[in-house]
Amino acid sequence: MPMPLRLHPADLALLGPELDEDPRSGRFTLVSGLVRHDGALYGGTGLAAAVLAMQAATGRQSRWATAQFIGQPRMGAVVEWTTEVLASGKRSAQLAVRATSEGAVAFTALGATGEAVEGGLTGEHRTMPRVAGPEETTKGESLAAIPNPDSYTQRIELREADVLDEDGPQAAIWVRRRDGGPFTPVGLAFAADFVPLAIARASHKVGAGASLDNTMRFRGGEADGWVLLELRGDFASGGYGHGTVLAWSAAGELLATGSQTAAMKYVWDEGDEPRLPSAG
Amino acid sequence: MPMPLRLHPADLALLGPELDEDPRSGRFTLVSGLVRHDGALYGGTGLAAAVLAMQAATGRQSRWATAQFIGQPRMGAVVEWTTEVLASGKRSAQLAVRATSEGAVAFTALGATGEAVEGGLTGEHRTMPRVAGPEETTKGESLAAIPNPDSYTQRIELREADVLDEDGPQAAIWVRRRDGGPFTPVGLAFAADFVPLAIARASHKVGAGASLDNTMRFRGGEADGWVLLELRGDFASGGYGHGTVLAWSAAGELLATGSQTAAMKYVWDEGDEPRLPSAG
Repeated sequence: MPMPLRLHPADLALLGPELDEDPRSGRFTLVSGLVRHDGALYGGTGLAAAVLAMQAATGRQSRWATAQFIGQPRMGAVVEWTTEVLASGKRSAQLAVRATSEGAVAFTALGATGEAVEGGLTGEHRTMPRVAGPEETTKGESLAAIPNPDSYTQRIELREADVLDEDGPQAAIWVRRRDGGPFTPVGLAFAADFVPLAIARASHKVGAGASLDNTMRFRGGEADGWVLLELRGDFASGGYGHGTVLAWSAAGELLATGSQTAAMKYVWDEGDEPRLPSAG
Repeated sequence: MPMPLRLHPADLALLGPELDEDPRSGRFTLVSGLVRHDGALYGGTGLAAAVLAMQAATGRQSRWATAQFIGQPRMGAVVEWTTEVLASGKRSAQLAVRATSEGAVAFTALGATGEAVEGGLTGEHRTMPRVAGPEETTKGESLAAIPNPDSYTQRIELREADVLDEDGPQAAIWVRRRDGGPFTPVGLAFAADFVPLAIARASHKVGAGASLDNTMRFRGGEADGWVLLELRGDFASGGYGHGTVLAWSAAGELLATGSQTAAMKYVWDEGDEPRLPSAG
């Protein structure tokens, strides 16, 4: 049975999805701007598409979602998804998404959507780190100065922030959409996929990892302009690293929290040759 | 094709699983000790079973897992699971688990298992909070003094700790297995399901919520005796709350991190009538 859609114009602009009449399935093309620097599916694109799929299937806001990255479709590939509504109550719905490309699983996801309860528990219990503003940062746009012009940096502008707190995060990154659109949960899922960078830095290494998953929990609503990503490495063992992200509006509202586990394959010591996956 | 098992005696003792010859499926009975105070499936049991299922199917250690709670099988019910191996590389395997009871979905899970890489990234980047030891706590065993003797408190002993740091967590709970066994990832998944309590407290409320999911990331290995659960509420909006847990060995090793989203339906003000789900 067809169910109500919940598709924000900013989300449509970001991913260009095509929904079927029954909005429990759809597809998008991995166009320029939706891939990593090596041309393969960007993890943020996968989680963003999963959040969009869950909202489209239920007409409700995403509350949390986790995406697990299986395949590596490349630029130009069509990614098709189907959403299974596992439970649908008065407020909450619970969902599973499976996305394939050319018959192979690209990513899977679980999550819940739900409408706000009038008078329901509301509060914020974390403190935004003190950082230099996006216009004052001395670190420049180093994060955006990366080889492939087709990568996600085409959609989002990234500026690493100077951290002013002594016990601050390993990385703080200001991010905004290049098209001027607001950050919804879909946009935050797209923009916040930088936890492995903080895991590497926590161990005084340079590099990143291959994300096994990307999990996020959302406040809902939207935020204009710059958003701050507060990134921390929690721990690593035997080459597997784990860390967290908090996404803050410029005004200091906590928009989302997230966590990831990554295979930390691409790390090296400062000054050594980079060990990045090839763009092959 | 049958694959190698990885079943720790302590995990078998906790859940009493029955594995099929092909270890990608199995079942367990919701006996006394595996349910909540209202007699329904305890979330920690669900995540623990998912972790066990993933390890059994691949013969590798769990690195992360998320379980999504759909149905509410009750004490005495048989829960059957199947594990799908979505990807299996040299080190890592990626998995999906679906558990049903009497034909209805009880929970679903995603996660990865993987062998440690020799010389792979290893490190710990969080600080254990200062709390009173399990023998010194003044808060007593209040958490265990709960009506139903068939609940998970039959398997684990819980002692709320006095938090000595000013900016400490909303709750810190010492936990140990009543059978004296060590905490493996399966045991930690079982024991760490108390995030909604911290979400309620962060808003100065009493009570808990209905967990929509339970996500954990593991260091691997095992820890004897008492483990400390450091529990924080991150934020809540419209009745949905989000928070985190860190699990520490008594010696201060970070064993696991976790997060949850919960529908915060069962919260009330200090001194008001409890609003708990009925044991019906």
